[in-house]
Formats: sequence, structure tokens, C-alpha cells
Amino acid sequence: MIEQARGFDVVRIRDGHRVADVDQAAAEEPLEIRLHGQPFAVIMRTPGADRELAAGFLLAERVIRTADDLGAIEHCTDAAAAGDHSENIINVTLAGAADTLDRVMASRRAITTTSSCGLCGRQTIESLKSDVAPLAVRGPFVTSRVIAALPDRLRASQSAFEATGGLHAAGLFTPDGVLEAVAEDVGRHNAVDKVIGRMAMMDALPLSARVLFVSGRTSFEIVQKALFAGIPVVASVSAPSSLAIDLAREAGVTLVGFVRGTAFNVYAHPQRIA
Amino acid sequence: MIEQARGFDVVRIRDGHRVADVDQAAAEEPLEIRLHGQPFAVIMRTPGADRELAAGFLLAERVIRTADDLGAIEHCTDAAAAGDHSENIINVTLAGAADTLDRVMASRRAITTTSSCGLCGRQTIESLKSDVAPLAVRGPFVTSRVIAALPDRLRASQSAFEATGGLHAAGLFTPDGVLEAVAEDVGRHNAVDKVIGRMAMMDALPLSARVLFVSGRTSFEIVQKALFAGIPVVASVSAPSSLAIDLAREAGVTLVGFVRGTAFNVYAHPQRIA
Repeated sequence: MIEQARGFDVVRIRDGHRVADVDQAAAEEPLEIRLHGQPFAVIMRTPGADRELAAGFLLAERVIRTADDLGAIEHCTDAAAAGDHSENIINVTLAGAADTLDRVMASRRAITTTSSCGLCGRQTIESLKSDVAPLAVRGPFVTSRVIAALPDRLRASQSAFEATGGLHAAGLFTPDGVLEAVAEDVGRHNAVDKVIGRMAMMDALPLSARVLFVSGRTSFEIVQKALFAGIPVVASVSAPSSLAIDLAREAGVTLVGFVRGTAFNVYAHPQRIA
Repeated sequence: MIEQARGFDVVRIRDGHRVADVDQAAAEEPLEIRLHGQPFAVIMRTPGADRELAAGFLLAERVIRTADDLGAIEHCTDAAAAGDHSENIINVTLAGAADTLDRVMASRRAITTTSSCGLCGRQTIESLKSDVAPLAVRGPFVTSRVIAALPDRLRASQSAFEATGGLHAAGLFTPDGVLEAVAEDVGRHNAVDKVIGRMAMMDALPLSARVLFVSGRTSFEIVQKALFAGIPVVASVSAPSSLAIDLAREAGVTLVGFVRGTAFNVYAHPQRIA
């Protein structure tokens, strides 16, 4: 049974009171797509319909044009080759001759690059792991009152969102709730890169006394970007993914979601919140 | 003056009545990042804070670790090298020696791949262009009543969203509003790839008699995926980006946004809606 959601222990904070609870988070896992057994791409996705995803992805990448170009699409069944990840590896055989594969792989080599998501350049699941040490988790760092005030403070600075309804925002706050940097972008990851990039250019990293607040959902890559910049608290108006929670717990990052009114959920390291 | 939003002529349809209006859409443009003059990555972003974005992106990609690794970050000033895109090209000089650059470029070559966004594998802005012919725009194809009903029909099939609040959805509908395929995913692009991929595996492409409805915002890549699959109408509960509108107009794709209640906006080719 493929699970599209996973249950997590959370701390719900409402008006400063804490209650232990269980929350469901959307499942996020890497899918490694191989062409004729060779690593081709890693996509962060919700498990399920993996063969369809691989077919649609290869279509959008112009690797295939029609169903005739598709041979087999199947999950990796070679345990030795897949390690512990067989459900997250899919192998595609193109129906054309070997020269088709050579052409595709050659064109890939000519466009060696990545998106802003911090993962997309990776070719294998193993390469997702980073060499960054977890952040040390000490005592209280920010109050629940400050967390609850972040959405209004971020929104007040979102001039372009008001006009278009189409922009994500990221804000970097001090523990007292003072907005230090803000960026808006059609891309969630870009908004985070812009605020962290600004601090990097000011040589202000690591941002060990800052809270990152984002307008959208929190995925693995957002937590990873915070970790790389040394930011101990990530909060959002919306839901985190399962892998964002896993990484936050492992990496010592406090992860807050669904900040609405005076209530929010803490998915990792609640001890930083007073 | 950098513009984060652009005005577009739209047709607002409310209760079946049409009104010409102007709407603001979030600006989306490609940013080509070069390292020492060599193409490195293309990011779809909202213009503004480009230098910060480049710094944050390179930090997240682990190309730089601290501000010390950054030399110059500047927009391309060489008109001959940049063509018409100088405001969308940024060149980064690493502060380390040439061997740092060689190491970075070599590691890029080893991870030749892309994300699911259909663009991220591109190294230059020119490579974003596709060789696909525009769709022919003929007369009415779907009624405004059907369009208005899509959000409820999609939501009714989103089982995992109800539990988590953290999943995007894409649905493929017939012109009569019958849901033919649906997918949920943490990634907006993945949900679209899954429904189109399913039809591709059934050898049902081109989808010239279908409407694609997505739960989130509409970016360039979503319209591009629809175009590649031959889908003539793309609709969404939320806002389109400027480049999504540009592409839809050019490619003969009807683009609908902000479907709420009995009202919505048409950003391209309204003649397909009766």
C-alpha cells in the first residue's frame, strides 16, 4: 500500500498552551529515474503513479514524443543495484535503438545544470545527502507570540502579491520579530535564495540567530537551504512535507507549520519556542 | 525600474457575461547564471534581487560556502554575448583560483540531469524555446458553466489533500466536465506529469479534446507541458505568471485563472469558451 500521507507527533501551540497531537503530512520521497539502468534524474515527489510520473516527465523533457518511444517502465527489482530504495527507483527502457539512448544521454551532458530547488541537479538518491553537521539545539530562542505575528508582518511587506495574487514570499526575522530581509518571487525556492543570498553577500552567515518565514508549503529543499545557512527556526503559514519533517528532526532545525491566528504546529525541536 | 508585475488585457467572465478588463500578473522571466562567463544554470524567477538570488542559489548548490568564495556578481554588460537578454543574464566570478571553477564544472558534468519543471535542465535562455507548433484555435470548445464547476469536481477527488492540506492536484477533464484522470503530489509539476503520463502510456496523445485543471498557480512550465501534450485549455484556481500568459498566447493555448464561484479570468484565446 502506497501512502500519500504519514502521521507525525506534533506539538500544537494555541494561545501559548501546548498540546501533544498527531498530524498527517503529505508524503515526499525522491524518485530516481534511470534510462536503461543509467541514472538520469531525481525528482522529489509524492509516491504513487510513479510510472505515469516517469512517462510524463520524459515527455516534458522531450526524451520521448509518443507512446511508441516507450518500452518498459518498471520499478527497480534488483535489490543489489537499488540498495534500500527499490520503491524509489524506476527504470525506463526506450523503444528506439541504442542510438536514441546515446543521443539523449549526450544531450544531457551538454546541458549540465540544475534548478533552484537544491536537489534537481542530483542524479542519484545517495547524492541528496549533505555533509553539513546538524545545528545544536539549545533552549528557548523565540516566543510563540513572535511566531504568531510573523504572517501579518510578512504580508505587510508583500507589495507585489497584493497586485497579482501570484507571488511567494520569504522573510528573515530576528528572534524579536523584526523583519530583516524579504523577497517575493513566483518561485518559492527563489524567494528563500534571495533572502539568504542577500545575507551571504553581507558576509552575515551563519544566520544562527534568525527565523525564516515562508508564505507557502515547506518542502525538503526549504529546510535544506535553511540548514546550509545555519538558520535554526523555519516557519510557514502552510503544511510541511514528510521529508521536510524528517530532515528538520535530523538536522536540528525547529520546524513550524500552519501559523494561523494565535495557533500553530511544531513538527521538530519545539524546545526553541518559549 | 524592475517590474514585479505586468498588466494584461483579460476577459472576465461572471455568470456567463463577458467584460474586458486589465489584470496584473506576477512577472516571470528566465535568469541565466554564468560562472566566469560559462553558462551554468537557468532559473525561472521574478526579476529583482538577481544578484542575491544568484548568491543564494550557488550557496544552496554548494558551489560557494561563504562570502569569501564570491568574487563579482554582475549583470552581463556585453551586449554581443547577451543578445537581447542582458537583464536576464548574470555572471558570477568565484574568488578562488581557476581550479575551483574547474572542480565545480566537472562536478556539474557528473550530475547531468534536470528537475520535473521542464526547464531546469536548460543551460541557456535560447534553449528554452521549443520546436512545437502552436495549437490551432477554432471555435467554442467548453462552456463557462463547465469551467466554473471544475474546482469542486477536482477537490472532491483529492483524498490526500483533505488529510494533509499539503498536496497539489491536477485533473484532466472532457469538454463536458467529466474527470478522466487526477493526480495529487507535493509538486505541482509532478501532478501534471502524472495525469499526462497516464494518457501517454495509454497512447492517447495528443489530448486535443481535454481541459487541464490545476489547483495551484500557472507558470510557464505548466503551459509548456500542456502544449507538448496537445491540450487546448488550461485552467487554475489561482494566478498565472506573465510568461505563462505570453506562452499561452503564442502557442494557441486557452489560459484561464482565478476560477472561483461562477467567475474566472481568461488570459489567452477566450474564443474556445462558450
